[in-house]
Amino acid sequence: MTGTRDPRRVTAVYDIEAVDPERSAAGLAGEQSSGTFTAVPGETDALRERHGAQVVALDVGEERAPSLPTRFAPERVRPARATVEFPMENVGTDLATLLTAVAGNLFELGDLTACRLSSLTLPGEFVAAHPGPAFGVPGTRELIGGAGGVLVGTIVKPNVGLDEDGFRSVVRELARASIDLIKDDELMTDPAYLPLATRVRIATEEIAAAEQITGHPTMYAFNITGDLAGLRARHDTVVAAGGRCVMLSVPMMGLPALAWLRSFAEVPIHGHRAGLAAQMRHPALGVDYTAWQQLARLAGADHVHVSGLGSKFSETDDQVAANIRSLQAPLGETLPVLPTLSSGQTVHTPAPTFAAVGSTDLLMLAGGGIVGHPGGPGDGVRALRAAWDAARSGTPLAQAARSVPELAAVLS
Amino acid sequence: MTGTRDPRRVTAVYDIEAVDPERSAAGLAGEQSSGTFTAVPGETDALRERHGAQVVALDVGEERAPSLPTRFAPERVRPARATVEFPMENVGTDLATLLTAVAGNLFELGDLTACRLSSLTLPGEFVAAHPGPAFGVPGTRELIGGAGGVLVGTIVKPNVGLDEDGFRSVVRELARASIDLIKDDELMTDPAYLPLATRVRIATEEIAAAEQITGHPTMYAFNITGDLAGLRARHDTVVAAGGRCVMLSVPMMGLPALAWLRSFAEVPIHGHRAGLAAQMRHPALGVDYTAWQQLARLAGADHVHVSGLGSKFSETDDQVAANIRSLQAPLGETLPVLPTLSSGQTVHTPAPTFAAVGSTDLLMLAGGGIVGHPGGPGDGVRALRAAWDAARSGTPLAQAARSVPELAAVLS
Repeated sequence: MTGTRDPRRVTAVYDIEAVDPERSAAGLAGEQSSGTFTAVPGETDALRERHGAQVVALDVGEERAPSLPTRFAPERVRPARATVEFPMENVGTDLATLLTAVAGNLFELGDLTACRLSSLTLPGEFVAAHPGPAFGVPGTRELIGGAGGVLVGTIVKPNVGLDEDGFRSVVRELARASIDLIKDDELMTDPAYLPLATRVRIATEEIAAAEQITGHPTMYAFNITGDLAGLRARHDTVVAAGGRCVMLSVPMMGLPALAWLRSFAEVPIHGHRAGLAAQMRHPALGVDYTAWQQLARLAGADHVHVSGLGSKFSETDDQVAANIRSLQAPLGETLPVLPTLSSGQTVHTPAPTFAAVGSTDLLMLAGGGIVGHPGGPGDGVRALRAAWDAARSGTPLAQAARSVPELAAVLS
Repeated sequence: MTGTRDPRRVTAVYDIEAVDPERSAAGLAGEQSSGTFTAVPGETDALRERHGAQVVALDVGEERAPSLPTRFAPERVRPARATVEFPMENVGTDLATLLTAVAGNLFELGDLTACRLSSLTLPGEFVAAHPGPAFGVPGTRELIGGAGGVLVGTIVKPNVGLDEDGFRSVVRELARASIDLIKDDELMTDPAYLPLATRVRIATEEIAAAEQITGHPTMYAFNITGDLAGLRARHDTVVAAGGRCVMLSVPMMGLPALAWLRSFAEVPIHGHRAGLAAQMRHPALGVDYTAWQQLARLAGADHVHVSGLGSKFSETDDQVAANIRSLQAPLGETLPVLPTLSSGQTVHTPAPTFAAVGSTDLLMLAGGGIVGHPGGPGDGVRALRAAWDAARSGTPLAQAARSVPELAAVLS
């Protein structure tokens, strides 16, 4: 319980509940480092001193009913915020080992009725051992012809089921709309009826053809989520055809898969978060976004999904803004990552988004907001860009719409 | 809503809550297949017919307060059990794609205040496309000299921090105790102070030496969890030295990593579940064990952790028994997998375990129960085996202890 922070320690803050929070926090620290439930030979003082995790702060709150079930079924528990320091020597610089220490078995400790990793502070040495995004914001912009401002994108819809002709027609229309990014839905991987290789061929053809007309090189995020044995081949298929982005559903594949992809990827990695809510949505359990995003960045995601303000997903606008701000926070020397907003994004969401995060280093994916524009996707893209210009300059949408008919068309 | 089950459909049962469960269940099915929040061009009736997921049953319960927070903050919601069928054509036979469909974005749908995948029924064609365990129960027994009955194992303790001499001394004592399996703690991966290669060398030496004395070839589950780029090399290190088992923390690495390891593994894979509780412990969120374990088996785990009856972990004995029974259920033509019990396992846990699951195709890991035996680990192993014999024959422990002093020593 010293005042100075050991630079070779990982600091994790947990929101826990227990009948005896002090004892349970110490138990957690022991279980996740040198200890066990029962004292064993070999767990010497010297070993514990060097390898034991330590509870360095504990703030205990008022007694309440338990948040999570446990076999011990206590009637009342006390919440506590426990700050635990883990020796870096235990985890080295390996992501999976770090994750096992700070977010492994501890979630099922029976004496805890809440266990939430609410923040994570990594030693500079750990951060420096990971490459982070290879492209990030600047590299992504460069591959989209130096596109400035908020990048505007969309998802091919319907999610699944399109045949080759249907897919070609969707991509053609979007690419000719000068959109910045098109992506596969997370459900679209490599199905027999529309294989990845076919999508890559069609989309790269259509994007190249559209660029001849628009001068704007649209980026396509091809979803290469799937078996690891084929991951590199799928990446290579994209790159060989001139594709400029691959997408990975990070929680479905695991952070080690992301890190491995980063080790050979020649294009930006679009990091989807499908399934993340399973370990994030209940406030008494799992891992907070602000902790998780650091690991996704270290593992090398260039774009990271954050939900969206005004979305149809569960997180509140304040939580989404906090997600974005956590991605904006510096992380060692790593390149800035591109927060990716999705779900329910329309001309009405730029103003609150800009007010909340004060940045245009964002990728906004709008589905109905673009494809559903009465004038077609080209007008949808122009309307959304105009809404962002208005948000940046503090101009009310109605006023901005006077000089942008595509914006006016969706306000009426 | 037909009465016949389409053999090419994946059936997932969800426990949800919503203000309007019928609408929200349909929304979930749409979102996770061909639909979106907004109707889009291209989502034709034919496409929806072929690729749309369908709610085939919905049982709605009494109004109650919401279990999970959401931006829409309804005061009252209705619980419902929704059975959803997904066309196999959408997911093919890919595990990550299946997971994205049945356990992806849906957990953060804002109109749901509960979303739990409570059961999963896979088409035979999907199951048949995966190898399942390469060794399972029979292959594991064979590698441990044809060991019968419940396999008895333990975890090297302290979890972390041992030096070479300390590690050697722990393994030597355990191997000479004729134990069936020794495993690394999940926190022990490949640290600089005791690298995997060093542990492999020491443990295989000690186990070979002990076998000369005991005639019993102890299996060691070496934890090869870590970066994917090095996974194969770590596996090869184990195999080259004559090691007979590798361990993977499946939730930390992802199911695709397990499937990939299975594709080249030459020894059984000990599947640890560290971190699984983050997406499993709250009953209104995430994935039920009975659903998850099928995927772990298809991906190729030979041993799968289930917590333990009488353990210090959160699940009740009934839940742990259900975990084991789900592992015992047939899964296509795959080999039977070895349920692995851990935490708090002592001579007192065999009787309730056998009563609950009626099988000795189990691996019981006892820490303090073996290492903490007053007569040392050899006596601990003998006591635990005697307790299992007693459980199988329905003999009270006190009676069995009359002829087994090692058992008597821990009952007094």
